[in-house]
Amino acid sequence: MTEVWVLRLFHRVSRDKRVSSHLALVARAFGARGMYYCGQRDPLIEETIEKVNSQWGGDFKIIYVDSYIKLIKKWKKEDGEVIHLTMYGIPVDKVIKTIRKSRKKKLVIVGGEKVPGIVYELANWNISITNQPHSEVAALAVFLHEFFEGKELYFEFKGAKLRIIPQERGKKVVELTN
Amino acid sequence: MTEVWVLRLFHRVSRDKRVSSHLALVARAFGARGMYYCGQRDPLIEETIEKVNSQWGGDFKIIYVDSYIKLIKKWKKEDGEVIHLTMYGIPVDKVIKTIRKSRKKKLVIVGGEKVPGIVYELANWNISITNQPHSEVAALAVFLHEFFEGKELYFEFKGAKLRIIPQERGKKVVELTN
Repeated sequence: MTEVWVLRLFHRVSRDKRVSSHLALVARAFGARGMYYCGQRDPLIEETIEKVNSQWGGDFKIIYVDSYIKLIKKWKKEDGEVIHLTMYGIPVDKVIKTIRKSRKKKLVIVGGEKVPGIVYELANWNISITNQPHSEVAALAVFLHEFFEGKELYFEFKGAKLRIIPQERGKKVVELTN
Repeated sequence: MTEVWVLRLFHRVSRDKRVSSHLALVARAFGARGMYYCGQRDPLIEETIEKVNSQWGGDFKIIYVDSYIKLIKKWKKEDGEVIHLTMYGIPVDKVIKTIRKSRKKKLVIVGGEKVPGIVYELANWNISITNQPHSEVAALAVFLHEFFEGKELYFEFKGAKLRIIPQERGKKVVELTN
């Protein structure tokens, strides 16, 4: 499976706490290996993910980076591809097949407010999920859903203690003993 | 086009401000007519949407309801269908074709914490977008993306003052004179 990571730009501890947590949880649930973030370092997000990993499995990483530009440049040097999600970009359905075809590792960038021009320049792809203002959480989910072609709906997570058995009504959760 | 509305349960002004705003913006961008919400009334969300409507067009509604149960029951009495997004439900790809086929109006429910059993009972469909914990914003986006089959990427909004012209690099926004 192609390796996918997310980069969340410009996290602010007070304002973005829940949105950045949602981004990390979506990245994990939809099959990314981990999420880098820059801006303010935030132990709370890291704890949220650790708890989810320990209950629901997998080895999703949260990694703080000082310089997002260094990370992007390093990624490209290592022959990875960089995808920037932005309402100004090319509609996802126009390019997703091409992006899927290359097995190079992917870095998917989601911005906060005001993403600098250099990100648009360095990205291999600037991609929109509608050209309307909405949510980086939604954009990331739809992008990964398209990228993994719905297979992410059934991804399994190693070492999970809990697993949901889908039901038409109500909740069924089983405890697993590994 | 089938009429779709969203119901956001149990909004809390301080904690959910941004998540509920993201839900409303996603609902609008992905083709819903409006969003009902219950819990605490929040003028800020209503203002956010008004501003977006006035710049980006359309007539998306935000409507506060006292009783979500009354709304759901009224909806069903009027021959509408109710879809509850929950990590415990049936995977979206198993049922989306059936849901799409019926032209009845749809109410898509997204919970906050701890959705009461009655919502699972009253819903025509309890649907999951992965069986992992993540984000109601992501669940709503992927559901609507599946429901509208990607056509939402190109929806146009009447009376918009601004329109984005998708670009491979950078930003292009045109001002429209209606």
